[in-house]
Amino acid sequence: MTSSADDTNASRRRFLSGIAGLAAAGAAGAARADNAKNLPPNVADWSKSLGEAVGTRGYGAPSKYEKETVRRTVPWLTATPESSVSFTPLHQLDGIITPNGLCFERHHGGIAEIDPADYRLMIHGLVQKPLIFTLEDLKRLPRINRIYFLECAANSGMEWRGAQLNGCQYTHGMIHCVQYTGVPLKLLLEQSGLKSNASWLMAEGGDAAGMNRSVPMRKALDDCLVAYRMNGEMLRPEQGYPVRLVVPGWQGNMWVKWLRRIKVGDQPWYTREETSKYTDLMENGKARKFTYEMDAKSVITQPSPQAPLKRKGFTVISGLAWSGRGKIGRVDVSLDGGRNWRAARIDGPVFDKCCVRFYAEIEWNGEELLLQSRAMDDTGYVQPTKDDLRKVRGVNSVYHNNGIQTWALKASGELENVEVG
Amino acid sequence: MTSSADDTNASRRRFLSGIAGLAAAGAAGAARADNAKNLPPNVADWSKSLGEAVGTRGYGAPSKYEKETVRRTVPWLTATPESSVSFTPLHQLDGIITPNGLCFERHHGGIAEIDPADYRLMIHGLVQKPLIFTLEDLKRLPRINRIYFLECAANSGMEWRGAQLNGCQYTHGMIHCVQYTGVPLKLLLEQSGLKSNASWLMAEGGDAAGMNRSVPMRKALDDCLVAYRMNGEMLRPEQGYPVRLVVPGWQGNMWVKWLRRIKVGDQPWYTREETSKYTDLMENGKARKFTYEMDAKSVITQPSPQAPLKRKGFTVISGLAWSGRGKIGRVDVSLDGGRNWRAARIDGPVFDKCCVRFYAEIEWNGEELLLQSRAMDDTGYVQPTKDDLRKVRGVNSVYHNNGIQTWALKASGELENVEVG
Repeated sequence: MTSSADDTNASRRRFLSGIAGLAAAGAAGAARADNAKNLPPNVADWSKSLGEAVGTRGYGAPSKYEKETVRRTVPWLTATPESSVSFTPLHQLDGIITPNGLCFERHHGGIAEIDPADYRLMIHGLVQKPLIFTLEDLKRLPRINRIYFLECAANSGMEWRGAQLNGCQYTHGMIHCVQYTGVPLKLLLEQSGLKSNASWLMAEGGDAAGMNRSVPMRKALDDCLVAYRMNGEMLRPEQGYPVRLVVPGWQGNMWVKWLRRIKVGDQPWYTREETSKYTDLMENGKARKFTYEMDAKSVITQPSPQAPLKRKGFTVISGLAWSGRGKIGRVDVSLDGGRNWRAARIDGPVFDKCCVRFYAEIEWNGEELLLQSRAMDDTGYVQPTKDDLRKVRGVNSVYHNNGIQTWALKASGELENVEVG
Repeated sequence: MTSSADDTNASRRRFLSGIAGLAAAGAAGAARADNAKNLPPNVADWSKSLGEAVGTRGYGAPSKYEKETVRRTVPWLTATPESSVSFTPLHQLDGIITPNGLCFERHHGGIAEIDPADYRLMIHGLVQKPLIFTLEDLKRLPRINRIYFLECAANSGMEWRGAQLNGCQYTHGMIHCVQYTGVPLKLLLEQSGLKSNASWLMAEGGDAAGMNRSVPMRKALDDCLVAYRMNGEMLRPEQGYPVRLVVPGWQGNMWVKWLRRIKVGDQPWYTREETSKYTDLMENGKARKFTYEMDAKSVITQPSPQAPLKRKGFTVISGLAWSGRGKIGRVDVSLDGGRNWRAARIDGPVFDKCCVRFYAEIEWNGEELLLQSRAMDDTGYVQPTKDDLRKVRGVNSVYHNNGIQTWALKASGELENVEVG
């Protein structure tokens, strides 16, 4: 699961040279403790009395000391709280799995609260036999399990015109990564029987916004899922309980939540959410359309403005990388704003259209650095700079900013979201 | 990630033959709906008004309709609620990841509530330099991410003398499977510098039970982790917040929670938890010792006594399989109590010392069946019957029952935990 044993060994050697004397004060304490019947100097209260009983929480919760690990909103960002967003606290996470309680939300009409007994999914349009599925129907069907990232097309959207938000939770937190369980959409469409001219479908949500998007039939028959579980349990309400569409690698807006209806047709519907929204207005006044795939992207999550460095010396830089077009093949890290790059260590599973976790180890002696990461996927695509993106797309865009992010590390250990000219 | 494309196609063909007419009643409704401006007959209340606003829950919770998806206890099983167990609701989950809030608990002195600022880990004994690490120290070190199952040695322990508990939550629910992030224990031991005769270590918890276990140095230097995260976020309190030992593939009792101390020695300590407990008393009065590895095992989670069948026709049998000795290579399913077997489809990731999810699809016409699953790992080991285990170990054992489980499916769709003679 690691990138290679050699990489791990190299990391270890760097660590060993960097960490010497780490716990010097502690060592003296330990030596004393070892003479005193092998007890550490402090026998804490929690070792002296019984703790909370088993089974008092049928469904558990994080430690009371982790209250700051939460999704956060930016109140001024949207006109109403029902059509708004909360961001995943990427700076407080590691690995690749996002806990369900921390997955970002983006809704257009608030969180629909659906009674699963009354849930229905209709498939109609250019099909031989229109069908309505209950949730129980869907749960009885063959299903598969896949770990995918889901990124909102507007993730990093505030950064087109320069550094705006100070923290990766806000600049990059419209992403999460979980294991979905669901029925291949292909199976449901085959049940209905596609007519010969069926080439698109429209997916519609049961929320008050009636969120709807056109999906090319090619994608629907490839890897889309009608999913009802995330990380083993039923979908959370804000993720479309009880059923959402999973459109791997494509922008989150198409992963229609509270999925109510799939209409099969022979052309796209050009709904509001694929014309006036979720298109990229170019300098010449024309808009890019059908910008479905999320291009390769990465971000350093630690250290970052919300997770400053507290000490000099051996330091692990960590972050996430992903691509909607395949697997991440490599991640580079720069300490000097992109002049020099080094390969990061990718650790843990590397799946198609899924986040990977990367690490790069440095000695930090208080110097000012410009930290960047750069993802490459297995198509050969290299994550561009923001300036490269602007040259091609101008600055009218909101969506699909996958440019390289820069954190300026100061002598104090604090970090700032900056532009590298 | 699937076992093979052929398997998937075969499943699909079985599904297509089995599911015909599934939504016949629904289809008529859909046809009517299609004539009425493409709306389904029922426009639900949740489509007519704004839902809950974004950001009202910084840390999310399951749907109010999923209140039955919880860990459960068996009050009569233990003398006190502080030294007890709550079980993972396996029958209500799919895929391989267990949500943190549903991971089973087993404590000996209740849940220690540790203030992370006061947390310390001491390494001492046969080392060159005793060390004390704070949580911040540990978080600064190189870390890796691995998905592992954790099974209590006593899982299925009530079944040695016959079918006892009616539901896989109770018979097999002392297992969970999450992605851990942690520091390789090898790195910490290298920091302290092992003396030449260092061949064992003792790991001790900071809970009131002071739970402690001996671990052979060979394992400690192989793949053990000092972990502080599960599924991305910090460990839950009942899983050892802020730090636990991860001992991949070995019995859960050794994964010491609230890890406080690692003492290095040249022989095992023979603590209470590895002598009077967590050993297997044989017929001849001697006990098996050092029974660390969890052998290959599996269980059908749906259908099962807590998840009965509601309808005849196409039915997906699903379950989990795992091995502490490597990867699961194959899972078989029997419908007739082990006389005939068919290969199940393994779907999703297949990792070392990790759960896999399997599926087998059948046509159920109301006949009585004896459902079993049988795991094989990549060492060639085949999960034994309970009777085979009893022939070797007798019935004095509590631990390490990895025998084949049988659910008797009745004509009503209900299931019962039974012994197949």
